Amino acid sequence: MVAHMNAAALQKTIATGEAWYFSRSRRSLWRKGEKSGHVQHVVSMHIDCDQDAVWLRVEQKGAGACHTGRRSCFYRKVPLGSWPVSLEFSQSERAFDPKAVYGK
Amino acid sequence: MVAHMNAAALQKTIATGEAWYFSRSRRSLWRKGEKSGHVQHVVSMHIDCDQDAVWLRVEQKGAGACHTGRRSCFYRKVPLGSWPVSLEFSQSERAFDPKAVYGK
Repeated sequence: MVAHMNAAALQKTIATGEAWYFSRSRRSLWRKGEKSGHVQHVVSMHIDCDQDAVWLRVEQKGAGACHTGRRSCFYRKVPLGSWPVSLEFSQSERAFDPKAVYGK
Repeated sequence: MVAHMNAAALQKTIATGEAWYFSRSRRSLWRKGEKSGHVQHVVSMHIDCDQDAVWLRVEQKGAGACHTGRRSCFYRKVPLGSWPVSLEFSQSERAFDPKAVYGK
């Protein structure tokens, strides 16, 4: 998954070892898994050369990270070599029912 | 590495199987490795749930991807559990001399 962090989310992630993000749509700090229970234990964190991106390796608790019910948000493959493209579903089985978990 | 793509960069990457990005500082399309020769052959490309992020697995040609001369941009580890943090260098050996390659 890819998500946004603000300073508070970064600090909480580092201090607690659990992934916190900042929800730009809700304008609020967001502990990953706070609704679903699908929290992320951070295994390692690296920061990039210009220090505007962090890369988390996590142990994903619960069924999955994606709000669509998949394990990963990257469940569609983009085939190469031709244009236009048709996305191919790949490891796209639903690991949980998002309606049951998020109520929407 | 993390970089930006515009529509043209995305289309060129898909069509050619080599990584193209869009340089926001230079405001121009950027074939990765055009100066350094450190091109990226795309092994696979996935797109995320809300289709605003693509994840490339690449075969990195040449010495490295990072403008600082490292293999990866993520050469510093963020230790967890305390605040403030001191970054730890990790796999941070220079694989090439950026001055020689980029002339700056």
